Amino acid sequence: MMEQSRPLDALNKARNKRVVVDLKNQKQVIGTLISFDIHINTVLDNAEEYEARTTKVVKQVDDKTREETTQTELHLKKKLGTVFLRGDTIISISPEK
Amino acid sequence: MMEQSRPLDALNKARNKRVVVDLKNQKQVIGTLISFDIHINTVLDNAEEYEARTTKVVKQVDDKTREETTQTELHLKKKLGTVFLRGDTIISISPEK
Amino acid sequence: MMEQSRPLDALNKARNKRVVVDLKNQKQVIGTLISFDIHINTVLDNAEEYEARTTKVVKQVDDKTREETTQTELHLKKKLGTVFLRGDTIISISPEK
Amino acid sequence: MMEQSRPLDALNKARNKRVVVDLKNQKQVIGTLISFDIHINTVLDNAEEYEARTTKVVKQVDDKTREETTQTELHLKKKLGTVFLRGDTIISISPEK
Amino acid sequence: MMEQSRPLDALNKARNKRVVVDLKNQKQVIGTLISFDIHINTVLDNAEEYEARTTKVVKQVDDKTREETTQTELHLKKKLGTVFLRGDTIISISPEK
Amino acid sequence: MMEQSRPLDALNKARNKRVVVDLKNQKQVIGTLISFDIHINTVLDNAEEYEARTTKVVKQVDDKTREETTQTELHLKKKLGTVFLRGDTIISISPEK
Amino acid sequence: MMEQSRPLDALNKARNKRVVVDLKNQKQVIGTLISFDIHINTVLDNAEEYEARTTKVVKQVDDKTREETTQTELHLKKKLGTVFLRGDTIISISPEK
Repeated sequence: MMEQSRPLDALNKARNKRVVVDLKNQKQVIGTLISFDIHINTVLDNAEEYEARTTKVVKQVDDKTREETTQTELHLKKKLGTVFLRGDTIISISPEK
Repeated sequence: MMEQSRPLDALNKARNKRVVVDLKNQKQVIGTLISFDIHINTVLDNAEEYEARTTKVVKQVDDKTREETTQTELHLKKKLGTVFLRGDTIISISPEK
Repeated sequence: MMEQSRPLDALNKARNKRVVVDLKNQKQVIGTLISFDIHINTVLDNAEEYEARTTKVVKQVDDKTREETTQTELHLKKKLGTVFLRGDTIISISPEK
Repeated sequence: MMEQSRPLDALNKARNKRVVVDLKNQKQVIGTLISFDIHINTVLDNAEEYEARTTKVVKQVDDKTREETTQTELHLKKKLGTVFLRGDTIISISPEK
Repeated sequence: MMEQSRPLDALNKARNKRVVVDLKNQKQVIGTLISFDIHINTVLDNAEEYEARTTKVVKQVDDKTREETTQTELHLKKKLGTVFLRGDTIISISPEK
Repeated sequence: MMEQSRPLDALNKARNKRVVVDLKNQKQVIGTLISFDIHINTVLDNAEEYEARTTKVVKQVDDKTREETTQTELHLKKKLGTVFLRGDTIISISPEK
Repeated sequence: MMEQSRPLDALNKARNKRVVVDLKNQKQVIGTLISFDIHINTVLDNAEEYEARTTKVVKQVDDKTREETTQTELHLKKKLGTVFLRGDTIISISPEK
């Protein structure tokens, strides 16, 4: 029987590659994956932090109707160098395409 | 006595199939289920990320009454390729219909 | 001495019956209870997802007073087929009446 | 030395009595306490769900001052029959007076 | 060497005394401390529940500046008699002065 | 080899000294550090509770632009005497300067 | 086979160096890293606390469209000296550049 792969195998394959990490505080960090543990505590190198900026567009559709749409975009905030990310703050880790 | 099924059996059956994963940050990821563990840490392949966009429609019903309805719709945000999702951020996993 | 019942006994009795599951993200899933474990990870079959839609009614009571009332209603969002629900996202499980 | 009482003793005394359960999602469930465990997973029978409805009253105090007061009231939402409540969603359990 | 005191010693000293318990849902419960355990699950007797009411005062400072100040006050909501409080919902416990 | 210091050493040094404790509910408690445990459950004596008051200043910059700035300030709310703080509600503990 | 690095190695290298710690309450603390443990409880010395200040800019784009953009900036709030930070409140730790 072939052994089934486990989630941490995917992180192991991404070591020393650029990954995109989404955080719960609406931020994103992109960097080289140096290390991680079973809690998904993660260290990235040459990391850049992107921050969500929320914009609400309010349109007067007609005399009686107004429409408000909220959108969120990521903007580069700062270069971090090396960064330690606490596992419980991480939503997803994905190799940069 | 017949052995009763357990929740992870349903995930095992979905391996290598397309699944829809709802996340706590109002996002949704659709992809091929590659692996998962007991914490429900999950890896998807050929994944696509959908993001919630909130719209509020404000209608002036009559002179004295205004009605505001908030709705949320999912929009394709980006193709992710492989993605590791931390289990505690997952609400539900469902085979794509 | 009579043995006292435990909470999971109530879930065991509901197996293969229609149940209403309230989730923390203001959604509701109704389906046939297939399985659950001690973390309350739960699998439903023939499931339907209902989503909260918030409406705010703003009434001008008199010259000096405005009243804003917020209400939430559930609307059928989509048919899910089989769905795995992570236990920590569940508020309550109740047999459909 | 007299043995000191423990919190679960109070729940044991309330078995088969009507209790009011406050939940973290601003809901309240009233029902007959059937069972509970150490995680405070709880089963109620003949249960009724009450939901919070928020009202904001905006008063124009004088030319330069506006006062907005937010209040929350509970309204009967539906009869649930038997309901399983996941322990971590519970704030308090109190015998109905 | 003198043994250092531990946090639960302070709760032990407060047994059978009136305590003020602040909860995470902006509520406060005042009652006689009957029992607690290591999770800080707590039972109070002759308890009263106080609820936060938020008021926003909006002042037009001058032609170009408006100031909005939000304040929260506690109001008696209801008498609870005996109440079981789940530990993870508790912020603080303090003997009534 | 010199032994490296651990975080709880810093709390031990602060025993019987005035400390500032920041809580997750935007409150601050200042008092004399009496005891703490590994969960950071903490007891303070002669404690004072400070509460955050939020002010939003709205400025009309020019015909087409309005700027809203939100600020939070701490105000003394009440003297607590002895207070038990549940560890998971604590953000930071710092000796008063 | 070379031993792979682990996340806490990165924190060990940062001992006695200036680090930037992002917290979940939108605050940032910068200080000299004195100690940490496996929960990421962390002690900093000569620490400074920065606090997020939110500004919303509302622009009238044209007759029918209004655009609201929310931004957050950090401002020095106070010097803390030594500070103990509870691990579960930490998002990231990064050596100051």
